[in-house]
Amino acid sequence: MVETSSGPALRVAVAGASGYAGGEVLRLLLQHPAHRSGRLEIGALTAGSNAGTPLGQSQPHLLPLADRMLVETTPRTLAGHDVVFLGLPHGQSADLARALPDSTVIIDCGADFRLTDATAWEKYYQSPHAGTWPYGLPELPGARERLRGATRIAVPGCYPTVASLALAPAVAAGIVEPRVHVVAVSGTSGAGRKLDVGLLGSEVMGSARAYNIAGAHRHTPEIVQNLTAVGDCEVNVSFTPVLAPMPRGILATCTAPIRVDAAQARAVYEKAYADEPFVHLLPEGVLPQTGSVLGSNAVTLQVAVDADAGLLVVIGAIDNLTKGTAGAAVQSMNLALGFDETAGLSTVGVAP
Amino acid sequence: MVETSSGPALRVAVAGASGYAGGEVLRLLLQHPAHRSGRLEIGALTAGSNAGTPLGQSQPHLLPLADRMLVETTPRTLAGHDVVFLGLPHGQSADLARALPDSTVIIDCGADFRLTDATAWEKYYQSPHAGTWPYGLPELPGARERLRGATRIAVPGCYPTVASLALAPAVAAGIVEPRVHVVAVSGTSGAGRKLDVGLLGSEVMGSARAYNIAGAHRHTPEIVQNLTAVGDCEVNVSFTPVLAPMPRGILATCTAPIRVDAAQARAVYEKAYADEPFVHLLPEGVLPQTGSVLGSNAVTLQVAVDADAGLLVVIGAIDNLTKGTAGAAVQSMNLALGFDETAGLSTVGVAP
Amino acid sequence: MVETSSGPALRVAVAGASGYAGGEVLRLLLQHPAHRSGRLEIGALTAGSNAGTPLGQSQPHLLPLADRMLVETTPRTLAGHDVVFLGLPHGQSADLARALPDSTVIIDCGADFRLTDATAWEKYYQSPHAGTWPYGLPELPGARERLRGATRIAVPGCYPTVASLALAPAVAAGIVEPRVHVVAVSGTSGAGRKLDVGLLGSEVMGSARAYNIAGAHRHTPEIVQNLTAVGDCEVNVSFTPVLAPMPRGILATCTAPIRVDAAQARAVYEKAYADEPFVHLLPEGVLPQTGSVLGSNAVTLQVAVDADAGLLVVIGAIDNLTKGTAGAAVQSMNLALGFDETAGLSTVGVAP
Amino acid sequence: MVETSSGPALRVAVAGASGYAGGEVLRLLLQHPAHRSGRLEIGALTAGSNAGTPLGQSQPHLLPLADRMLVETTPRTLAGHDVVFLGLPHGQSADLARALPDSTVIIDCGADFRLTDATAWEKYYQSPHAGTWPYGLPELPGARERLRGATRIAVPGCYPTVASLALAPAVAAGIVEPRVHVVAVSGTSGAGRKLDVGLLGSEVMGSARAYNIAGAHRHTPEIVQNLTAVGDCEVNVSFTPVLAPMPRGILATCTAPIRVDAAQARAVYEKAYADEPFVHLLPEGVLPQTGSVLGSNAVTLQVAVDADAGLLVVIGAIDNLTKGTAGAAVQSMNLALGFDETAGLSTVGVAP
Repeated sequence: MVETSSGPALRVAVAGASGYAGGEVLRLLLQHPAHRSGRLEIGALTAGSNAGTPLGQSQPHLLPLADRMLVETTPRTLAGHDVVFLGLPHGQSADLARALPDSTVIIDCGADFRLTDATAWEKYYQSPHAGTWPYGLPELPGARERLRGATRIAVPGCYPTVASLALAPAVAAGIVEPRVHVVAVSGTSGAGRKLDVGLLGSEVMGSARAYNIAGAHRHTPEIVQNLTAVGDCEVNVSFTPVLAPMPRGILATCTAPIRVDAAQARAVYEKAYADEPFVHLLPEGVLPQTGSVLGSNAVTLQVAVDADAGLLVVIGAIDNLTKGTAGAAVQSMNLALGFDETAGLSTVGVAP
Repeated sequence: MVETSSGPALRVAVAGASGYAGGEVLRLLLQHPAHRSGRLEIGALTAGSNAGTPLGQSQPHLLPLADRMLVETTPRTLAGHDVVFLGLPHGQSADLARALPDSTVIIDCGADFRLTDATAWEKYYQSPHAGTWPYGLPELPGARERLRGATRIAVPGCYPTVASLALAPAVAAGIVEPRVHVVAVSGTSGAGRKLDVGLLGSEVMGSARAYNIAGAHRHTPEIVQNLTAVGDCEVNVSFTPVLAPMPRGILATCTAPIRVDAAQARAVYEKAYADEPFVHLLPEGVLPQTGSVLGSNAVTLQVAVDADAGLLVVIGAIDNLTKGTAGAAVQSMNLALGFDETAGLSTVGVAP
Repeated sequence: MVETSSGPALRVAVAGASGYAGGEVLRLLLQHPAHRSGRLEIGALTAGSNAGTPLGQSQPHLLPLADRMLVETTPRTLAGHDVVFLGLPHGQSADLARALPDSTVIIDCGADFRLTDATAWEKYYQSPHAGTWPYGLPELPGARERLRGATRIAVPGCYPTVASLALAPAVAAGIVEPRVHVVAVSGTSGAGRKLDVGLLGSEVMGSARAYNIAGAHRHTPEIVQNLTAVGDCEVNVSFTPVLAPMPRGILATCTAPIRVDAAQARAVYEKAYADEPFVHLLPEGVLPQTGSVLGSNAVTLQVAVDADAGLLVVIGAIDNLTKGTAGAAVQSMNLALGFDETAGLSTVGVAP
Repeated sequence: MVETSSGPALRVAVAGASGYAGGEVLRLLLQHPAHRSGRLEIGALTAGSNAGTPLGQSQPHLLPLADRMLVETTPRTLAGHDVVFLGLPHGQSADLARALPDSTVIIDCGADFRLTDATAWEKYYQSPHAGTWPYGLPELPGARERLRGATRIAVPGCYPTVASLALAPAVAAGIVEPRVHVVAVSGTSGAGRKLDVGLLGSEVMGSARAYNIAGAHRHTPEIVQNLTAVGDCEVNVSFTPVLAPMPRGILATCTAPIRVDAAQARAVYEKAYADEPFVHLLPEGVLPQTGSVLGSNAVTLQVAVDADAGLLVVIGAIDNLTKGTAGAAVQSMNLALGFDETAGLSTVGVAP
């Protein structure tokens, strides 16, 4: 555990600070109590093509950092920091990680170190597998322990975060058959700040579309991996992502053949998340909505049983950039450094 | 068949003309060739609380009819018309229909006469079953024949339209097991012009939420009915509707356990819809989006097989107000009156 | 006047068919009565980087043309057409126009030939002035006559369309001092299908921003030119464009110091637009909204007097892609070819 | 000044806790350092028709308070609190205020006590003038002093906040003629959680509209009052509000005839806001956008001179619910109670 109550401030760098993940990490760090009290300093902010410009140009919402200059993402600019967040295109993390000291806490918002199965990695990412780091979803069984004191952390994908938390209790308890369907509606920021005609405002506003269907989305093996681990059995996963006209948020509809009744199912979830600060099972009949978790680290869930169809139906909502990316990163940092796990994170959304 | 090429113009009334369904019926009638050529006249426009106001107040987009006064919805105001479209809250159609001559073509955009199973009706609508009328989804097997010359027509629900068309070929051909999942993302106009806090712009913009989950949505038995009919077997249906921040459109993700390979599945759909003017199987790999069918009567589909999950995945997009309601109503009217089935309807969307 | 009722069909080409302006021209041509009756054929569809791909890839909403291949934009591909619509980046029209026969009707949706003042052109566009073509805003005094039979037409900018129509009657009648303010809120399609971070859906949804303020927008001299012409006096114009989170539509707030009372002001507008098919002065107190003119060629206006501030206030709404671009182009084509001016155009919007 | 560093916690009530203003006050209080440290307790939460329901039903984004029951808004339920925030329909504050002790700090987010001119009040609100309280816009000259230790505070309207801050320096310095134009684009939450067809999501998405034009909006006299006070001269104000399809945010375009050059104008603003924690003059050429201040208490401004039109152009952006309502309320509370003025408030927005 890092000694935080005295001594020099922790220095934190953010690589990819001009992207959406990097921006959200910075937004959360700015409101982190360690930052407010001076124990955590925001150091190097690095970028690719935006290097050499002030942060205010790419992240105009981060007024306190508007004048900070972005520098290039290199081992040299990232050296000398206690914590380094990586918000980079996949494939770039391994080399940087090797070039930084083992003691540096590296928290990778990218995909490079999430999968344990090299074959699955290579099938979905068409590149050599870089390895596996502790997985930054503390709410999964055993994960919290692996994150405490970790110096290398792989932040989960946004879809796997909500899908795994929505289904893990049922799969772990064996109250469903291990054949799950996930259809998840996402805001556009999940695609990053990529220049793509299909992501232009004119194209996305007023329109919904599915993409990477039939198991083609790279988050599919990650959902399989998480549920297989908690269920200790092979889990068949159907995953369909849908793009909706909103900047943030994921609303996941998750189903699986149910073996128990509604009350038993609810009891399983109540027990699983009773002590979790960020996962909230809503009162019966109240349904999650992404607007209520905007900017927050909360996961809201509702559980129901469709008796006619013989299915458990779990609805989950998260903010893809907060709990789905940067919130998980900060939560993981808190565990790695020995801070209060919830420091700098909130279950209060910005609504309406 | 009604004689349309000479003689007096057909008079058409719209009940519920201040609502979204009624407004869309009027939008389509205004561009109908029979209206342009003077063979179809727009007669009484009726409403509930908006009676006594000019249509321009509630439907400011229908400029050519802006000065027409809304009158009350009664058998008397609807009398003397050849065609009457009903866009009313459910439960109001039966009495009106009884009061109008049998020769009047009544096209009900509401739910009252859609279901054949009185028990299902009573379970989902908590009221006595009014009966069953020919079902206005011409693309279903046998439906077109029943609609030709019909004088009573039940327009399908918006979700059942896209779900049924997305799954019917596979179920009919027996290439899937009859256990289907439908998760459908809808724009807000599907809820009608209802004053409900949850439908306020401030609440829906930037947010997605599921509702009536676990089989609770009233369109569930309608999907079951359609697929059961085409498959001639019991079909297990899981249906989840999701509200997305857009005014119009439904994007449905439909899956079922597959028994054939991708090429065979595609062939089934190609054959099923080869001659349909409004149902378009998109080129391989191209995915439907609701923005592309906005204002059009088209249904766009894509078919894929998820080999790992063993599922057929069909994505479908419609405009819930056009093909999902008023377009189907006009298409049905065309069949009932002997017009060209596509008259006044388009497969050209308004985009971006 | 072109003879249209017999003989071979008119052949129409669209250059820039993969852009928003080109797509909207095609949408309108597809519903044009001359196209429906076979008297107007859609010929070459040309593009820049999209040449070689089917139109369905870039314009998935134009299903009837989905299989048409885009070819390169050259004098050769555009040759042999009776009408050529240009939807190209500014600066490309002059060379193409020179290479086509004088008898070809060329309708330029770009800016190249809008301004009469070479100095203003060079100041705002930093390139040599190509010349001036008849201006495709038939509702301006004298414009309709110049468009009849024209073979070269400059389609107005979207902002100048609504600003000019909102203010021209008052300026022409001398009921205001010639100092006008225009603040116009626009949907994002006005910026075209440009890959620009600021136009990504994630950036524009939920946000409004002004741009090119303080007279920097290129449409400023065009508004000045139009109002100066109708007023026969120097007109001082303040113009501020604001980007709003919607795909289409412009809502313009226009003010000028008033010299008469509200009734007199209203009378001026009633008289000016009494016979115009597309310009609608709404009933007193009813305010224009862009949603009501979506997809339509209508201009809706409201006129009021702010007695305390001593100002005429005119609010105008258009669809920037229809009346603001492609609708004006088709309206101009109708005049040029001797069709009914309103052919293929509608005052019915797609709402909600 | 209230003694805050020791003794019992301050008890704070929120009347109208189920509305948008009340919800935003609670959001800010939950992240206020005094709340986090236990020195500020959230006491009674009152409502009208929602009394008797848990807060989670109307404010699902405030998870930490989800189980708190709403009680009726009465002097009795509000008694016993040190601070009472009022987020009520106008006309209800005076009676409540009279019934509470003079020592209670009452912060009214409504309009009742904003205007000094009884005639203006009666003209715009059609009811007797209740009086005038210190005005909660600390950035206006002299306001901060009046707020320190105040026990009655009138929170400014959202439009007057941004319009006044955008124009006050110029008017105060006499660098503009006192004739100003304000056109402000607002998100829908500015209208509150009112059941109104025009505020339904289906109506507002994809559409912009002006409302209460020509000086009819009730915020007009408030802007006049603020600018008249800072300019010490009569100020002519033209104000047009425009509703845009976004939940939050106001983007104001403000102009006035300029008497100096651009550099001088900029210098005036730099000086005026050099020490203000929440008002940020952006770097030259960078334009405010509402998305960047979402959830933050910042006001971002840009200043330019339109030399051709002879105008100062100031663009300002705020979050209407934060700096435009609840943020100003909390900022005022901080001043009233002797907290750090910025406590619990941020200049970090939630973006994208």
